[in-house]
Amino acid sequence: MPMLRGLPDEVLAALAAIAQPLAVEEGSVLCREGDPPAALHLLLAGQVTLSGRAADGSAAVVEVVRPGGRFILAAVLTGRAYLMTALAVTPARLLRLPAAELCELAATRPALGMALARAVAGDFRAMVLQVRDLKLRSLPQRLAYYLLQLAPAEAPAPVALRLPFDKALLAARLGCRPANLSRAFAVLRALGVETHGARVMLHDPSRLRGFAAPDLATDAEAGGPAADR
Amino acid sequence: MPMLRGLPDEVLAALAAIAQPLAVEEGSVLCREGDPPAALHLLLAGQVTLSGRAADGSAAVVEVVRPGGRFILAAVLTGRAYLMTALAVTPARLLRLPAAELCELAATRPALGMALARAVAGDFRAMVLQVRDLKLRSLPQRLAYYLLQLAPAEAPAPVALRLPFDKALLAARLGCRPANLSRAFAVLRALGVETHGARVMLHDPSRLRGFAAPDLATDAEAGGPAADR
Repeated sequence: MPMLRGLPDEVLAALAAIAQPLAVEEGSVLCREGDPPAALHLLLAGQVTLSGRAADGSAAVVEVVRPGGRFILAAVLTGRAYLMTALAVTPARLLRLPAAELCELAATRPALGMALARAVAGDFRAMVLQVRDLKLRSLPQRLAYYLLQLAPAEAPAPVALRLPFDKALLAARLGCRPANLSRAFAVLRALGVETHGARVMLHDPSRLRGFAAPDLATDAEAGGPAADR
Repeated sequence: MPMLRGLPDEVLAALAAIAQPLAVEEGSVLCREGDPPAALHLLLAGQVTLSGRAADGSAAVVEVVRPGGRFILAAVLTGRAYLMTALAVTPARLLRLPAAELCELAATRPALGMALARAVAGDFRAMVLQVRDLKLRSLPQRLAYYLLQLAPAEAPAPVALRLPFDKALLAARLGCRPANLSRAFAVLRALGVETHGARVMLHDPSRLRGFAAPDLATDAEAGGPAADR
């Protein structure tokens, strides 16, 4: 858990004392948009989507949380309603840190308070990168950028990679319909992107990088959702 | 400053002791994308845009900061490079809180640490609402939603309001070209939205609200960028 790195043993012991292990099936709702925050969830295994729903029923996947990630720290810290619903899209194992106990610990242990502040600051930076991505890039560019994030940094030679989740979920994460995702993959074919189901081959990463118009000073930042930004 | 509300006098005095007043002209860059964080800026008067630039030179306005707002707390807390450039788009008055001193104060004063954590959590929630907005709504819906945020909550009767900044900046904030913003205003005309320069009349807010497909449980949250979410 990057969030807990470097905390004094006493603080880790206090956290362990309030942590509740949890194992859930695929399809379980772990927190629901509009509800008051009950607990911070640390994801140990599995995948969880965070999504928001509009009054007309349409939903947007804001983020896909992978092991090492957490949700939803901002709601726990502000004590305000969850802005997103967390859904386990695979079986998942988690640790629950009850909100009231966690905030009480943080209020008396500056090291924990600062660790939580840094963690939620990292969450903010991930969202800033997404807003930039949505405002600056076309869908094929967003897809190219996403694929490049899955590849080792600066890979010059062909790279084989695996999509971390299925294409329906990838479309939702990128903010498009599945049909438009297929069209975006078709656009990228001319740039050396070959797909077979979840397996993706980038034949010319540097050309793809040029197409994706990477961010100026921030490329190293843009890891998966579990990365601490 | 909502961020500082409720802090003990001793903490406010310590903050006052490190605060540096600053007055800048229109066009001044207050922090630059890629630079290490030097200070947290509290905006007292004026308007500041936060924007990111891609390698191809295109830029996206992520947020417009108004008085009572701050930037960029997440960079200061993580000690990592700014992800956005802050530009004064009007003459502005600010308070600078040097990053190292601020973090030092927060590390020994849990009340300040938690206040910063809650503040950056609010910043995160604002970005989540923007990501949802960008993924869920068409441009005319985003514009309708933005205009409704400027109106008093639940206003049933016609509302007169003023755009807080010019249409070029509004287009950038909504993530579109000025020509597309004009087209979006044209779409909204049929829904009772009348514009004369910066003055906007919403003749039928509830119909507009239906069109904008508001978020489920989160409407009360969505204030301007200065609001603490």
